[in-house]
Amino acid sequence: MTMSDVRTLARRIADIMLKGEGTGPYWGIRVEDADVGYSKISMTVREDMLNSHMIAHGGLIFALADTAFAYACNSHNQAAVAQSASIVFTSPVKNGERLEAEAREVALIGRSGVYAITVKGGDGRVVAQFQGQSRVVGGKIVEE
Amino acid sequence: MTMSDVRTLARRIADIMLKGEGTGPYWGIRVEDADVGYSKISMTVREDMLNSHMIAHGGLIFALADTAFAYACNSHNQAAVAQSASIVFTSPVKNGERLEAEAREVALIGRSGVYAITVKGGDGRVVAQFQGQSRVVGGKIVEE
Amino acid sequence: MTMSDVRTLARRIADIMLKGEGTGPYWGIRVEDADVGYSKISMTVREDMLNSHMIAHGGLIFALADTAFAYACNSHNQAAVAQSASIVFTSPVKNGERLEAEAREVALIGRSGVYAITVKGGDGRVVAQFQGQSRVVGGKIVEE
Amino acid sequence: MTMSDVRTLARRIADIMLKGEGTGPYWGIRVEDADVGYSKISMTVREDMLNSHMIAHGGLIFALADTAFAYACNSHNQAAVAQSASIVFTSPVKNGERLEAEAREVALIGRSGVYAITVKGGDGRVVAQFQGQSRVVGGKIVEE
Repeated sequence: MTMSDVRTLARRIADIMLKGEGTGPYWGIRVEDADVGYSKISMTVREDMLNSHMIAHGGLIFALADTAFAYACNSHNQAAVAQSASIVFTSPVKNGERLEAEAREVALIGRSGVYAITVKGGDGRVVAQFQGQSRVVGGKIVEE
Repeated sequence: MTMSDVRTLARRIADIMLKGEGTGPYWGIRVEDADVGYSKISMTVREDMLNSHMIAHGGLIFALADTAFAYACNSHNQAAVAQSASIVFTSPVKNGERLEAEAREVALIGRSGVYAITVKGGDGRVVAQFQGQSRVVGGKIVEE
Repeated sequence: MTMSDVRTLARRIADIMLKGEGTGPYWGIRVEDADVGYSKISMTVREDMLNSHMIAHGGLIFALADTAFAYACNSHNQAAVAQSASIVFTSPVKNGERLEAEAREVALIGRSGVYAITVKGGDGRVVAQFQGQSRVVGGKIVEE
Repeated sequence: MTMSDVRTLARRIADIMLKGEGTGPYWGIRVEDADVGYSKISMTVREDMLNSHMIAHGGLIFALADTAFAYACNSHNQAAVAQSASIVFTSPVKNGERLEAEAREVALIGRSGVYAITVKGGDGRVVAQFQGQSRVVGGKIVEE
């Protein structure tokens, strides 16, 4: 495949994963960009995503980063799942704020991958940093 | 306060936090038990919580653990927020499965706390283990 | 094997691992207790373990917890390795302080395990909490 | 200060921290590069850094990454300490292998910072990825 082909395939995989999952469409997630080992997605925080302090629930910020992670680690068209992840929260997020999560592949050695995901707020500040470990479990996402 | 009083207060805090947040009621979270530095909550996995592999999205499993963490670290009636967290996923979770997350305080030194949360499936198997770090930011949750 | 046998085997494994590694003997690590899925070890902080603030280097506190983790996750006499780990530091540690790390198995499902390790200082306060994920790679540690 | 001045200061801070700590000189750590929010350091694995499988102990790989993290998060000449960290191990490391850890600042908001550290082996493969959270505690490292 050419560089353009793998990029097109990565985008197709992200689109199909988003369409096929219960979470992304409900949260209003949009795929902004996709490539091999890469994804950029966005989500706008709503009232049902707030905690009792009226800021975005950490679980939703994690879920957004985890979704970007999933699209990136499945972009090779080999089904992969998350094994572990960690997140650092650096700034609170308000209702109505548009968040963008960008996932980059740091390494993929054998079946084991590691990805770094940065979540930014509407003004570009970093609101969370996420590190995820994936494991390839086999099977394809789409027919090539 | 007596042991019984602090336990009653912890339960009141968990109930008020759940009622006041956008996420918990939407996810159908129920408080099963609460005490100082402790909480046990439950959630039943629904279709809108599934990923494209038709198993529970890791983000929701994290969010459940994170919610138990929030109730436990706020149980002293001093507002606290999550600073960082990490999670290990040990078993996939199916649609319709009832999950239970139990949060225990490992340490609270000054403003800094650390909590261990175990998430179990309907059959009692561990599906995820979560470790969270909190920071007390001041202010009360409820009037005593 | 009886309960007593597996406990004896776990201790033998920890002793053999400690003896066979470069790190533990150098750091002065001692096995205090061992059982299936469990270990308790100790280490006394020395000058060559301090950072530039003259407190114990976080890397050594991690290394102590990681060592307890290794003994616990290999205690089934099936070689296992660390895949990921996270640590929260809750209190600084002084030169000369004796640390104790206690590792407990939270879950072992198939080849994947998760362990919680608490590191305590000489006065019993928690100085760090560690969460580790292991993977069984096959092979025995000792002949039974 | 000019760009050149802050870079010189960052290097001076890393050199002073390395000289003043018990760990780095013992491990043979060398500062390869330093800048504001950045450091690159190296270490060669020795026998006393091996675990019982005769590969580099995870605790030492963590300690190397943690050291790069410390130099990077103190590079603003405001004393900062690690609060939490997580690491994913992606490839085993042999005796005698030269490791390089490169730390980059992802965000520094108020007193709270987050850093991503990549550890590479002699052949350039990623052997571990580390994510660390720091907190500025006040005080300077060097007089300007």
